[in-house]
Amino acid sequence: MAKANEFVKDIADIRENFPQWYTDVVIKTQLVDYGPVKGTMVMRPYGYAVWENIQRELDARIKATGHENVYLPLLIPYSFLVKEADHVEGFAPEVALVTHIGDNELPEKLVVRPTSETIFCEMFSKWVQSYRDLPLLVNQWANVIRWEKTTRPFLRTSEFLWQEGHTLHATQQEAEEETIKMLRVYEEFAKNVLAIPMLTGKKSEKEKFAGADATYSIEAMMLDGKSLQAGTSHYLGQNFAKPFDIRFLDKDGTHKHPYQVSWGVSTRLIGAVIMAHGDERGLKMPPYVAPVQAVIIPVAMHKAGVLEKAEEIKATLAKAGIRVKLDATDNSPGWKFNEYEMKGVPLRIEIGPRDIENGVATLSRRDKAGEKFTAPLEGLAQSVQTLLQEIHENMYATALAFRDSHVKTVRNMDELKEAVDGQNFALSMWCGDRACEDKIKETLQTTSRNMPFDQSPVGDTCVCCGKKAKHKIYWGRAY
Amino acid sequence: MAKANEFVKDIADIRENFPQWYTDVVIKTQLVDYGPVKGTMVMRPYGYAVWENIQRELDARIKATGHENVYLPLLIPYSFLVKEADHVEGFAPEVALVTHIGDNELPEKLVVRPTSETIFCEMFSKWVQSYRDLPLLVNQWANVIRWEKTTRPFLRTSEFLWQEGHTLHATQQEAEEETIKMLRVYEEFAKNVLAIPMLTGKKSEKEKFAGADATYSIEAMMLDGKSLQAGTSHYLGQNFAKPFDIRFLDKDGTHKHPYQVSWGVSTRLIGAVIMAHGDERGLKMPPYVAPVQAVIIPVAMHKAGVLEKAEEIKATLAKAGIRVKLDATDNSPGWKFNEYEMKGVPLRIEIGPRDIENGVATLSRRDKAGEKFTAPLEGLAQSVQTLLQEIHENMYATALAFRDSHVKTVRNMDELKEAVDGQNFALSMWCGDRACEDKIKETLQTTSRNMPFDQSPVGDTCVCCGKKAKHKIYWGRAY
Repeated sequence: MAKANEFVKDIADIRENFPQWYTDVVIKTQLVDYGPVKGTMVMRPYGYAVWENIQRELDARIKATGHENVYLPLLIPYSFLVKEADHVEGFAPEVALVTHIGDNELPEKLVVRPTSETIFCEMFSKWVQSYRDLPLLVNQWANVIRWEKTTRPFLRTSEFLWQEGHTLHATQQEAEEETIKMLRVYEEFAKNVLAIPMLTGKKSEKEKFAGADATYSIEAMMLDGKSLQAGTSHYLGQNFAKPFDIRFLDKDGTHKHPYQVSWGVSTRLIGAVIMAHGDERGLKMPPYVAPVQAVIIPVAMHKAGVLEKAEEIKATLAKAGIRVKLDATDNSPGWKFNEYEMKGVPLRIEIGPRDIENGVATLSRRDKAGEKFTAPLEGLAQSVQTLLQEIHENMYATALAFRDSHVKTVRNMDELKEAVDGQNFALSMWCGDRACEDKIKETLQTTSRNMPFDQSPVGDTCVCCGKKAKHKIYWGRAY
Repeated sequence: MAKANEFVKDIADIRENFPQWYTDVVIKTQLVDYGPVKGTMVMRPYGYAVWENIQRELDARIKATGHENVYLPLLIPYSFLVKEADHVEGFAPEVALVTHIGDNELPEKLVVRPTSETIFCEMFSKWVQSYRDLPLLVNQWANVIRWEKTTRPFLRTSEFLWQEGHTLHATQQEAEEETIKMLRVYEEFAKNVLAIPMLTGKKSEKEKFAGADATYSIEAMMLDGKSLQAGTSHYLGQNFAKPFDIRFLDKDGTHKHPYQVSWGVSTRLIGAVIMAHGDERGLKMPPYVAPVQAVIIPVAMHKAGVLEKAEEIKATLAKAGIRVKLDATDNSPGWKFNEYEMKGVPLRIEIGPRDIENGVATLSRRDKAGEKFTAPLEGLAQSVQTLLQEIHENMYATALAFRDSHVKTVRNMDELKEAVDGQNFALSMWCGDRACEDKIKETLQTTSRNMPFDQSPVGDTCVCCGKKAKHKIYWGRAY
């Protein structure tokens, strides 16, 4: 176990210094590296493979709900950004501007997209003429740039990868339904792929997207009790359709502006996966995004037949669609155990001479560290698939139980302070006034607020001013 | 057939005005639209779906040859570009430069990547220490910007999507083998997925990539006899490894610079697909990249059971993995026939009351316009899969026969002129001197040159100067 200790020493203690633990694991497991330009990140093979798995799973859901993928240009005329007043106010300070091609100055500076509402609207105004063109349901996978002062890999980077859905609808009702539908798609995806329970709800007026009438989000609790906003869905009303003059001839023979929605999740989800599931040994990858779902480690590799059997198991599992890796390097089994624990591989499969003799493999689950058990080689692929599903369910249940035990219902500012200082979400009633929201944020650093869809009251009065309450709301400290 | 004529009138005559035909089909079939910034393009759902199919097929091949995907930042410090002299000379005039974030000027201007050799090298210099770290085989799917004066959708755009492979090797031999291996991967992919025969070979010194020791390419003949360079693979030697100080400790205990390779294909491939396969009616999509492989058109849709049967066929084909679309709109069957012919859907499936009575569907292949035949509904999915493979093979054979009939072996400048003026590739011997290359290019606009791997001579003397020849070479006019 000397090797295990060496590894644990390499990573900061998750209980004592969570931020340093995060930095240590993302770098040491080679998920990511720092890019040469401040605030940028390099996604290494192990990290990018997580993103590929996220993309594949989410893309299937986006298409199943009737959306088609498109690709619009990276560079947007600056004049577009200015057309929607709140939008430019929100994004102008952090946009990267292209001013020159080689030595030649451009006649108009170009914005490297921070998001694409404006350029989508420009194209929509050409494509939409009639109610027959609606709903228009498109999505793009792209890179965006938002210059951030404080950056952390995956969580907040100057450039990130994401998908942005953009849709147009003939009626407000249909657009509002799309807004919630896609939030629910994110919620289901987070549960069944990332093994993360999400709080879904509405952001306050103060927190909504620059240009939206309403913003909804999915929010996850990290292992330090902080909140991570993991995805958003915006009801944009006609705020962009009007300045971009998008109009359609409706069935009643009149021209109308359509109602618009946008929704997105990003490489930030990888940060959520890391911080919702890790432990003192490193990452815990949920099986359905894990780049390697099962790692095979041959024991006494020099003995006749061991490597051959390991190769055979690998081929069998790969054929069943399991993402499997065989580590046949000359590192010791102990070194390998620690390496793949740190990398969070959900299932370890040891195979040695005694296992072969007994017709079994020796298995160990990352989510139940230390427990070893055997499984017959006959039917191993099916056993592994069942185990991966069990690991997924256990990880989800563990994350849900952790979050539920860290939600405190509070009635006044003292209780609210105690709750958030104690690494919890505080659930309270709120009068809905900006003054109370600001006061709570400033005094208690509750940078996360989310009003759940379930508004069944937990009291009558605002946690801050004591006046009659309008909303139920979660308060937390945000990434 | 009145409708057919209407459509044909919408598209310029492919024999009389090929460039206009190209512009007409890419816009009218909604593959693409023009972006608001000059030279940019918007990939609409029908066009982006082609790219998704290309990505899926090629990505599988890139991974099967041992490469892993990564993602590196879009923005590169200008100082990196300058480190390799030929590289900066080649790219500096056409790079987009980010100089400001909002109102704040950056301390160093940033290049929006035109290609990523320099930033990969920066990261490689951190990641590579020992021969154990080699070969390092990575690839990224990304957008790049190269500001072009004359642009055309897919063929030459200010921004395009591509993959760029970047690899490092301990020996020159291994790097040279990788260069050719990936060219062969492209060639096989073009044949088996795009149904396009490629000429593979080496570019002249004059034409090689800025910073490479040698550039190899795949080149396809378009229907107007012009050449389209569809992909490149570059042997970079140690040209970047030295200025970026990438070094590894070799087995012999000494530090060495590794040898480097890069290779890429882009959304230009979609232009190749369009121009290698179309006809006077519009696009002809090769089945394995076609967004819709088979379209079902119900005939006498109002009759009982027709739509139900059409839905049933759709479900059966979709379940078998066929990309199928059912057009149940109230447009006439004739209108639909023309629409999907223009869009190049490989297979049309009509289903009407008489078909149902006979237990068949009526089929029509896009590659054999006009021919109708029936297939039993029993086992239709299998029949469709067989037909798609036959269509693919026929399209490849047709493109190959067309190209082979448009290659003329020439011995002197008169013959060379006659060949290229007659929309052919000219195959000749060449002395290898830049003077002859320049003369031929300037007098005959042979903007495409490619030296095939098969150098079995077609003569002894240079087509231009008459001196002893060194190389066999194809001359053509390029996109």
